[in-house]
Amino acid sequence: MKMGLLVEEDFGFKFTPLVVIELDKNANEEAIKWLVKRIRDKKEHGGAELMIEPFLMSSSDENHNLFLVGASTRRLLLAAEEIGIVKECEDGSMRAFTCSNRNMFKDFKDGGDSFFSMAECQYIIKLQLDSLRAINERIIPGYPQVTLYPGKSILRRLMSKGILVQYFPLHDKEELKKLSYSWYSKFQLSYQPLDDIRHYFGEAISLYFGFLEYFTFALIPMALIGIPYYLFAWEDFEKYTLFATFNLVWSTVLLEVWKRCCASLAYRWGTLIRKKEFEEPRPGFHGVLGINPVTGREEPVYSSFKRQLRIYLVSVPFVLLCLYFSLYIMMIYFDMENWALGYHEEEQSLWSSLVLFLPSIIYAIVIEVLNRIYRYAAEFLTGWENHRLESSYQNHLVLKVLVFNFLNCFASLFYIAFVLHDMKLLRQSLATLLITSQILNQIVEAFLPYWLQKRRNKKVHKKLGRTSMDKELPWAEQVKLEADMDTYLGTFDDYLELFLQFGYVSLFSCVFPLAAVLAVLNNVTEIYSDALKMCQVFKRPFSQPAANIGVWQLAFETMSVISVVTNCALLGMSPQVKSLFQESDTNLILLVLAVEHILLAFKFILMFVIPDVPKDIRTQLAKLEFESLEALKQQQTQRAAESLKKDREEFKLKAP
Amino acid sequence: MKMGLLVEEDFGFKFTPLVVIELDKNANEEAIKWLVKRIRDKKEHGGAELMIEPFLMSSSDENHNLFLVGASTRRLLLAAEEIGIVKECEDGSMRAFTCSNRNMFKDFKDGGDSFFSMAECQYIIKLQLDSLRAINERIIPGYPQVTLYPGKSILRRLMSKGILVQYFPLHDKEELKKLSYSWYSKFQLSYQPLDDIRHYFGEAISLYFGFLEYFTFALIPMALIGIPYYLFAWEDFEKYTLFATFNLVWSTVLLEVWKRCCASLAYRWGTLIRKKEFEEPRPGFHGVLGINPVTGREEPVYSSFKRQLRIYLVSVPFVLLCLYFSLYIMMIYFDMENWALGYHEEEQSLWSSLVLFLPSIIYAIVIEVLNRIYRYAAEFLTGWENHRLESSYQNHLVLKVLVFNFLNCFASLFYIAFVLHDMKLLRQSLATLLITSQILNQIVEAFLPYWLQKRRNKKVHKKLGRTSMDKELPWAEQVKLEADMDTYLGTFDDYLELFLQFGYVSLFSCVFPLAAVLAVLNNVTEIYSDALKMCQVFKRPFSQPAANIGVWQLAFETMSVISVVTNCALLGMSPQVKSLFQESDTNLILLVLAVEHILLAFKFILMFVIPDVPKDIRTQLAKLEFESLEALKQQQTQRAAESLKKDREEFKLKAP
Repeated sequence: MKMGLLVEEDFGFKFTPLVVIELDKNANEEAIKWLVKRIRDKKEHGGAELMIEPFLMSSSDENHNLFLVGASTRRLLLAAEEIGIVKECEDGSMRAFTCSNRNMFKDFKDGGDSFFSMAECQYIIKLQLDSLRAINERIIPGYPQVTLYPGKSILRRLMSKGILVQYFPLHDKEELKKLSYSWYSKFQLSYQPLDDIRHYFGEAISLYFGFLEYFTFALIPMALIGIPYYLFAWEDFEKYTLFATFNLVWSTVLLEVWKRCCASLAYRWGTLIRKKEFEEPRPGFHGVLGINPVTGREEPVYSSFKRQLRIYLVSVPFVLLCLYFSLYIMMIYFDMENWALGYHEEEQSLWSSLVLFLPSIIYAIVIEVLNRIYRYAAEFLTGWENHRLESSYQNHLVLKVLVFNFLNCFASLFYIAFVLHDMKLLRQSLATLLITSQILNQIVEAFLPYWLQKRRNKKVHKKLGRTSMDKELPWAEQVKLEADMDTYLGTFDDYLELFLQFGYVSLFSCVFPLAAVLAVLNNVTEIYSDALKMCQVFKRPFSQPAANIGVWQLAFETMSVISVVTNCALLGMSPQVKSLFQESDTNLILLVLAVEHILLAFKFILMFVIPDVPKDIRTQLAKLEFESLEALKQQQTQRAAESLKKDREEFKLKAP
Repeated sequence: MKMGLLVEEDFGFKFTPLVVIELDKNANEEAIKWLVKRIRDKKEHGGAELMIEPFLMSSSDENHNLFLVGASTRRLLLAAEEIGIVKECEDGSMRAFTCSNRNMFKDFKDGGDSFFSMAECQYIIKLQLDSLRAINERIIPGYPQVTLYPGKSILRRLMSKGILVQYFPLHDKEELKKLSYSWYSKFQLSYQPLDDIRHYFGEAISLYFGFLEYFTFALIPMALIGIPYYLFAWEDFEKYTLFATFNLVWSTVLLEVWKRCCASLAYRWGTLIRKKEFEEPRPGFHGVLGINPVTGREEPVYSSFKRQLRIYLVSVPFVLLCLYFSLYIMMIYFDMENWALGYHEEEQSLWSSLVLFLPSIIYAIVIEVLNRIYRYAAEFLTGWENHRLESSYQNHLVLKVLVFNFLNCFASLFYIAFVLHDMKLLRQSLATLLITSQILNQIVEAFLPYWLQKRRNKKVHKKLGRTSMDKELPWAEQVKLEADMDTYLGTFDDYLELFLQFGYVSLFSCVFPLAAVLAVLNNVTEIYSDALKMCQVFKRPFSQPAANIGVWQLAFETMSVISVVTNCALLGMSPQVKSLFQESDTNLILLVLAVEHILLAFKFILMFVIPDVPKDIRTQLAKLEFESLEALKQQQTQRAAESLKKDREEFKLKAP
């Protein structure tokens, strides 16, 4: 744990504050006292055994009701063992941390004070707070209408009732400065400091940035090959086939190789071999109190039949309706496009040629807006489906959002390509959609929040009567400022953006070879703007362990399968190819068909043949498993030998 | 352990013989003495701690040098714990057996004498014998040229040098009689006694019979629907499409549902939750002595680069050559077919119409012969590739054999369907191939060995001067008889047969709807002949734990994907469909294409959506995992609390 925040002298704390809990400013005194007691209580008495102090404002600002939480090093070490955090040993191997073997681990010294990173400490504290459960309390003291039951997470209930506003980890200004310097401040070509990002933000976010960087590098060959195609307008059959085939094989290989890179990173970060915890119900889950068949504990139970009904009778029809609506809007776009074309032919002025681009731009904006509205609807619906597990909630949400976004972004392109057969329009729409969505995303996602945050910072500085922004704020103001910052909602939107970009690049790659170039350029700035967003705009997020990019791997693979189909179809439809098979359409189609099937088969064979985990890491994993098996065996053999000995002695005693 | 063989009074054994070890009749006396000593030695001294006695022949027959092996109940219980055998508890859940909790388990009484089945005991003994390893011996006593190194399995080295001929488990005549009565003796419609089969032969074989039965039942709907198509010669487009679509969806569903059935069986038999052992090098593996990076032990090491060279420079070209040769033979077949057709048209006699069938029959026989020859070549090559693990050896072997068998059996059908476009010939070839291969298989696999075995039995009876075959042989003769029986080489051939049958049924199902009927009929007799083969013809095989049908699941799934492609193509090519799209071939092909892609997508979605393990078993598995996590946590918390307490006390002592 880095002792970055030495606030003892200022506020009289006996500990380093790591996490801030914000309660409602009108929260009942009795409830606060009870909560503080429960957090301080010993583990044996069902408490979290953490340190907590109210945060006393220096100014008269009364909008906040903040508490600072910390923990002793010993408490952190014990909790880390319980959670199963994996750290590097002296000999370079990764092992689950145990207190009894603590001296085996690298960088364990001074009783373990700086053994865990601040992000790890905050993650440990978060888990401790989350697992603070009701014992015998039936209500929350001071709120007789807020019921509890044994085993219910206290913080989750407080949060769902609005008594607890939020809890978030504190930034470490000094470390953040160092990180942002090496990450995005110096404009030079270098890899991102993934290990440092992981050290500060945790594995899930670092994996996202790792994937973004990997993906950008992987696009460079496609971009480089695409440039001459664009410049010299190479449009003959062989060259295009070559380009498309390269793209298809390349996209399969890059996704497979990413799995290997990901495994390497996850192994180095200790998440690959970490034991999965038993999944608790997600905060929003509700139901009648019953017995969980797995744990045998009392917890809310919700019939999975009811959930299925909700999914198939409400969610699915709603999604289909939205898809229909989106297709309807697409048809309006094509009417507008026709109108603009007619207008331009009539007028033939500069203005009318600008009008030509109008429908595409309007459509792109409408799509973005629709996507965002639908996203809220999908979140509401998935919440209403009442999934017990966070993972199943996430899967259903991702599926809903992906289907809609896919249709919204690509339906018009499919229509242009396979119904209108208009390659020129396809190229133009693709370019417009790609560029508009990229610019829009960068603005909405990074620059707008950054600007708002800057303004907020300025306000605080002004209030304190400072003129320069360079000087650091007093610590107390900093905490308040962070409490007001926006919350980072996870990597979902970032991955979605990459996913759609991958679609633009791969689905119609043989029509618009420049797409990869645009994507590379966008991703380079995306790295910077996302980094800025993480460091400057949002509250620090709790670190989240992750061993891979989860459902997104599947989504990208599916997209790459679909792109084989579309590219083959596009190639088959191109006039250059058609002119080669003038005598018979059938032969052409059969050829394209054969090529498509061979490519698909090749893809699946590649997926199957390339091992998901590099060999040295497989050896390491096998070694670990072998060791644990051996240990178990030895233990059992020993125990068995002892029991045998004992029995023999008993037998001797009994024998005359 | 069933005490089926009470031979104590006859031969003076102090134990129930379970496994027979046959040494070469000229084996060196010193080596035998050493081996017997090592098998009897205590575990602590590196022995197997089993009981072994030479088997003294009553007759003067000197062709055998047999030893009988057994073990005490206590030894079996301890070994079962070490291996991690899973048994049913009193409360119906499945748990790994431990001696300390032995009274928790169902049917544990009388000190565990009849707790394990005879097959389980034999399996345990086999593992003990296999894991008998050299300690300090550098050679086998009496054979100075046969070297050993620390950790080398003694029995494997003895076997590879021909000093050990074989070791096999004994049949239990009484139980076998009961099993064969309930399995195949009574001709009535009933499920196979899978639990009894598993009890006697182990999980791998029982799973094969379970799959055979399941597959037969699953084919019945296809057969029932196929009959009217054949009888009324329904050849219009809609009906065929309906039939083909049903078949394709059905085959996907049946494979997915099988996974669930398989998981249920494997859970009930305790193999689903059994911990996987660390895989030792396979017996045939050789190399320079080096250090295994996983275990850190001395063992032969073989460079994987050399293996890759052997695979890509020798095996792959050889397989391709064989494929080419097989295609060449196929072309000869078509020439013969043409000649026969010409001959029949000239002669128009009964003889010439019989000649018409000749080429197909000859080709079917040649295919069978080629398959068998190639099989030996594949086994030799895969052995020469020198794979370290048995599983990787099996995978490479299965892949080689599958590719060749697939081409051999189906290439001619593909040629007829998609090059000659001759549906009548396709139907005829399909029928001939299917029927010939089925009859041939039954004869070669079951009836021929059965007849040979019968003859052998008769000879023994004759020698003993008996006239009736009904009476049981004296026990000593029975052991000798079993030693002479053929060895069952595993389920590979049986699965391969089913796989090819599945190909005949599904690849061209819309052309020959009767294929499913033939398959069902064949499988019903197959169950009987396979059962007969297992019980009467072969030595009892060692039971082998298995949780699923392994690589065959993948093979069947691949076949079902290919069958979507072939069926769609066949439908598109049928004259009835072509007449519907007279104006344009292109529209027809595009339609077929769309249908194919939709079916494939639907297939993959189905595969993804249907969970592989039934819900109740998932709950059981989650429960087990939760319990072990809780136990671990409790243990750690306890340990941590103790260490905390200790530290606090130390601190108090130090404090003034």
